[in-house]
Amino acid sequence: MKQCLLHLERSLLRTAPMGLLVRALMTLGFRLRWLWGRVRFGALVRDRGIGCVCAHDVDLKYPQNMHLGDRVVIGSNVSLGAHSPITMGDDVRISRDVIIETAGLDFSTGQPPYTHISKPVAIEKGVWIGARAVILGGVTLGENAVVAAGSVVSRSVPPGVIVAGVPARPIKANRFKE
Amino acid sequence: MKQCLLHLERSLLRTAPMGLLVRALMTLGFRLRWLWGRVRFGALVRDRGIGCVCAHDVDLKYPQNMHLGDRVVIGSNVSLGAHSPITMGDDVRISRDVIIETAGLDFSTGQPPYTHISKPVAIEKGVWIGARAVILGGVTLGENAVVAAGSVVSRSVPPGVIVAGVPARPIKANRFKE
Amino acid sequence: MKQCLLHLERSLLRTAPMGLLVRALMTLGFRLRWLWGRVRFGALVRDRGIGCVCAHDVDLKYPQNMHLGDRVVIGSNVSLGAHSPITMGDDVRISRDVIIETAGLDFSTGQPPYTHISKPVAIEKGVWIGARAVILGGVTLGENAVVAAGSVVSRSVPPGVIVAGVPARPIKANRFKE
Repeated sequence: MKQCLLHLERSLLRTAPMGLLVRALMTLGFRLRWLWGRVRFGALVRDRGIGCVCAHDVDLKYPQNMHLGDRVVIGSNVSLGAHSPITMGDDVRISRDVIIETAGLDFSTGQPPYTHISKPVAIEKGVWIGARAVILGGVTLGENAVVAAGSVVSRSVPPGVIVAGVPARPIKANRFKE
Repeated sequence: MKQCLLHLERSLLRTAPMGLLVRALMTLGFRLRWLWGRVRFGALVRDRGIGCVCAHDVDLKYPQNMHLGDRVVIGSNVSLGAHSPITMGDDVRISRDVIIETAGLDFSTGQPPYTHISKPVAIEKGVWIGARAVILGGVTLGENAVVAAGSVVSRSVPPGVIVAGVPARPIKANRFKE
Repeated sequence: MKQCLLHLERSLLRTAPMGLLVRALMTLGFRLRWLWGRVRFGALVRDRGIGCVCAHDVDLKYPQNMHLGDRVVIGSNVSLGAHSPITMGDDVRISRDVIIETAGLDFSTGQPPYTHISKPVAIEKGVWIGARAVILGGVTLGENAVVAAGSVVSRSVPPGVIVAGVPARPIKANRFKE
């Protein structure tokens, strides 16, 4: 079977306009996913401002608990777990593979098995979250804060501060003042 | 084409029961994936206890080397690479996007190119692994241990300990005693 | 519906050759994706050496800016964002879920909103990038360097050095000398 497919592949690649065909197939698939993504997002997340963009493969858990401002951009493969409410201000940008999860375990008893709890997440306007960051329940990201790629944010971040690392710590306070 | 799809989207969203239709399509897709996930998991992982749940999109490499207890829960988009055996006790919970990979490179020679090796991973009963953690070959997670979201675990964890960070270090020893 | 599917599942699993059927379906799906992956990669990334392998689900953004040597291996679910050029030498191995992203934000102004910038990424021959690492714009990975699983690399790495952590720091300098 592998030989047969390799032969098929060579025949396909030998045809002159193969690049065009692949691009056409990809564009078609992209457009269909884009349409489905828009329709799905529009039907599920009712409380949102104008000009929001959300990738088609975003995992929207409890979309009725999501409250989005204007021009929010949510990248590919993001996962939003809104067991408790997730609120986002205007112009929030969420890069690909980010996880925002309000649910977790309660370690305060210090004794397993731990119980499941969930706390709300608030993301104020202008926040930029880098690729593959994880935002946990109870966190508030202040206005224009920046979360570097790959960070795990378990505590709130003041406005205009850049955080990075696991767990995320401030790496630079901006001159930004309200 | 984009204009045409935008027009199609607006027509779709204008129809009153669009939310219902999207929800119905999503439920249907979810159920079909769920069925496929159960059949696939049942056919591939033979050595497992009762009540195990495994998401449909889990990457099961070498499923014949996986040994699962009762009520194991494996979340969405997890990747299990069992080149060497992976064993899990009862009530292990693995959150989404976790990677458990027994294979890696052997750096002990101190000289590239490094050779590929693999070592078994053992996860004892009651362990909770947070979203997007990475568990590497040779690691044993003791009973009721907790791995925080986004951690990379390259050394074994004693029973009841909570680890976090890259690389993962203990952040809290529970009062849990055997 | 759930009951009906559970019944269907039990009927399916009761049939003796269910494992064979699941395996056949998985092999078929795997082969078709493999073929599509090869054709797509061949059509999109024109500047590449011989013997390169790229998983079918790799996200190739701006493939015209990618320049690959011989025997490059790119794993499952990798994301390459080549707004600026990405170059890879011979025998580079990229594990699953790695993100190489040349685009980001320019923090040098110290004042939000930040502007978007992109810088090239160069990966020299023999580099091994572990699962789920993130490589950011402007980084050069020297010959035979190793990036541990889950690292976030924001600064260049000298030849033969192993880096780990968020942000990635050297954990071991090899005896490797040119």
